[in-house]
Amino acid sequence: MPASRPRFPETDVLVTIKNPHRAGYLGHLLSVIGEAGALIGDITTRFIGKDHSFRDVTISVYDAAHLEAVKRAVAEQTTSEILAIKDLVFERHVGGKIHCGRTRDLERLEDLRYIYTPGVARVCTSIANDPALARQYTGIGNSVGIFTNGTRVLGLGDIGPVASMPVMEGKAVLYDQFVGISAVPVLIDAKDPDAFIEAVVRIAPTFGGIHLEDIRTPDCFYIEEALIRRLPQPVMHDDQHGTATVLLAAVLSALRYVGREDDASLVFAQIGLGAAGFGIARLLIEYGFTVLGVDPNPEAQAHLRARGGTIAELDDALARADVVIATTGVVGLIRPEMVRKGQIILSLSNPIPEIFPEEALDAGAAFAADGKSVNNALAFPGLFKAALQVGSPAITPEMKIAAARAISELAQNQELVPSVLHPDVHTKVIEAVTALF
Amino acid sequence: MPASRPRFPETDVLVTIKNPHRAGYLGHLLSVIGEAGALIGDITTRFIGKDHSFRDVTISVYDAAHLEAVKRAVAEQTTSEILAIKDLVFERHVGGKIHCGRTRDLERLEDLRYIYTPGVARVCTSIANDPALARQYTGIGNSVGIFTNGTRVLGLGDIGPVASMPVMEGKAVLYDQFVGISAVPVLIDAKDPDAFIEAVVRIAPTFGGIHLEDIRTPDCFYIEEALIRRLPQPVMHDDQHGTATVLLAAVLSALRYVGREDDASLVFAQIGLGAAGFGIARLLIEYGFTVLGVDPNPEAQAHLRARGGTIAELDDALARADVVIATTGVVGLIRPEMVRKGQIILSLSNPIPEIFPEEALDAGAAFAADGKSVNNALAFPGLFKAALQVGSPAITPEMKIAAARAISELAQNQELVPSVLHPDVHTKVIEAVTALF
Repeated sequence: MPASRPRFPETDVLVTIKNPHRAGYLGHLLSVIGEAGALIGDITTRFIGKDHSFRDVTISVYDAAHLEAVKRAVAEQTTSEILAIKDLVFERHVGGKIHCGRTRDLERLEDLRYIYTPGVARVCTSIANDPALARQYTGIGNSVGIFTNGTRVLGLGDIGPVASMPVMEGKAVLYDQFVGISAVPVLIDAKDPDAFIEAVVRIAPTFGGIHLEDIRTPDCFYIEEALIRRLPQPVMHDDQHGTATVLLAAVLSALRYVGREDDASLVFAQIGLGAAGFGIARLLIEYGFTVLGVDPNPEAQAHLRARGGTIAELDDALARADVVIATTGVVGLIRPEMVRKGQIILSLSNPIPEIFPEEALDAGAAFAADGKSVNNALAFPGLFKAALQVGSPAITPEMKIAAARAISELAQNQELVPSVLHPDVHTKVIEAVTALF
Repeated sequence: MPASRPRFPETDVLVTIKNPHRAGYLGHLLSVIGEAGALIGDITTRFIGKDHSFRDVTISVYDAAHLEAVKRAVAEQTTSEILAIKDLVFERHVGGKIHCGRTRDLERLEDLRYIYTPGVARVCTSIANDPALARQYTGIGNSVGIFTNGTRVLGLGDIGPVASMPVMEGKAVLYDQFVGISAVPVLIDAKDPDAFIEAVVRIAPTFGGIHLEDIRTPDCFYIEEALIRRLPQPVMHDDQHGTATVLLAAVLSALRYVGREDDASLVFAQIGLGAAGFGIARLLIEYGFTVLGVDPNPEAQAHLRARGGTIAELDDALARADVVIATTGVVGLIRPEMVRKGQIILSLSNPIPEIFPEEALDAGAAFAADGKSVNNALAFPGLFKAALQVGSPAITPEMKIAAARAISELAQNQELVPSVLHPDVHTKVIEAVTALF
């Protein structure tokens, strides 16, 4: 397996190809592309003429160099002509992915007089007299601000607030489509945690919920704690708690598959105590499990101890744990000989895990999975929607646990969690969480 | 004319009425309502039975006390029964008036992989390498943040940020419907101008344009100047410059109607130098006119002098001016005997002007109007859309003047400005402003 590439090519491009219109030719072309290591996706025929055809073929490659190799193979081994290549991801981002707009059209002058002056003045006055009415007569009660300073975006590191906007817009799309929340990205041009906190506090009245995203450690812990203390509405750092909630769901599913779902004596090893790893360890402890944490950073170690975890060395933790969860980003960190028979191994780093699931299973693991399916989008939309619906001032451990159980219950066929596009999953999360109130 | 009420009842309510089903009865009922001083709007028949009917009747009243009087009149003078009363303005505000959401649905897992991980990482990386690409691959380039601290909302004064949200949402609706801008209200919990500035600067990278709204004087001047100096994108305080642009359009129309549109020697009196008045005076000076300013506030006086205006007493200004513009909020400030023959009088305070247009005309004015038609929404959407389209770092006087001319050109039949729902007005503003670049 290539060490520097993900297991499968993931960059989708749309290649418009002019082919000789002869039986067997398309198969030949696709074979050449496939032999060059690219995967074939959708094929759409645009035109068929007397002696040639135009087709749009979606292919997945590793990267730009791989795409060049595919183009060379097509040029050398076929008489097909590549007319155009479009990067489907960039195409999809043109103009951005979200829009803030009206919920109803203005058609008559009367509409204007209702939504703007003079009518709007009466609504303002009512809210000034009774601020609770803002929930009813503005969108604040169904809104979430997604705040980032872009200091730790995906696996890309500190790329700054503007370059992180595509991720924030993506989150807003998921909020809208999955639970109908009006979510607004807010880019904060401040690396200093106190300046970040101050900016969020100042504009916090705009939103019903505060979603923190892609902030580096340890700043993310400090910022989240301060905002929870200072703001009246729910605040959640998704990289910690969204991830932790989905991971807990995955753990509950894995335990169910190996028949140990009611075993409170289980020992967990959490390898890596960054934002996600710490959030996971913390929620497992809150759930009632014993957690051994592994991380060379003394600050991270102290942080986990303060939450009731135990710090251990990697070998020791792997030797003792029933369930191993790794979020280190270090490829190959877990060697097959370290795996204990019957262990559950969730090796979550993307795009390449600490140990591939097949390796872990070959080494005796009872269950193994990578992080491909562990998608935060299973948790945060329903958690915030439920919090807004019941007017909760916080996203509590109980809410996360209820959400994790609801997510896990929909997992089937050895899957850890259902798809984020599962038709029921977000409704079930909302139901489970609101039932606590 | 009532001194404490607007000239016409403006609060629309939907009254569901059960009537005896007899010829002539509806007319009787409507006469009773009309004699009680309410205006009749739409009538919708919901049900007609053997001996009674249900109808929804929209009526306009002055206020709650007036509505009670209408109800008493109906109870005492008819056999109709009022079954329900709905306030149409509040009905229209339930849940808020805007939503931030996806521009395209997610249908397949592939869509997710394009707009979220893993695909989105490549877009982020591209923008990190070339920040200008944010304009192409995010919504920033077509967005405006609408910032307020709610310290001077409409004529209501300092009602705070949350109570001002209905106005901000209304502005966002207009941006969306008129020019397709994605506009996001941002409520800032800070009366201190420096704290306000700091918060806007911190989150400014989120938006292509910065729209300031409903901020008290003199803070609004200080805040706008600082933000223009510190930020790379266009910044505009709408209460000053949006109002000024539409007023300049109104002035150009009035001058056209009296045949003095090319008279550069005209003297203007600007009565009241608050945000709107100062903005108007400033733009008139920038246009090339002579402006006498009237305001008891020494700070406002100094502000106007710094921009090239002359301070005068009310009587003196009215005696010398060819065009009088009043934005004081003081009912009856301009007495008929102060009006000079042939003057143009624009008496803009809402809901009751400094002098009613009929009074001014009776006193010899060549042209008179109140502020009912002077709607900022004629200017700000097109100004910002044009600025975003051409990538202008500012909203300049030249842009405001071009917009004012475009607006005025669409005014007909003695109207000062066209309706904001005029099918061409926003396009014409955009064309006129972008033509400068």
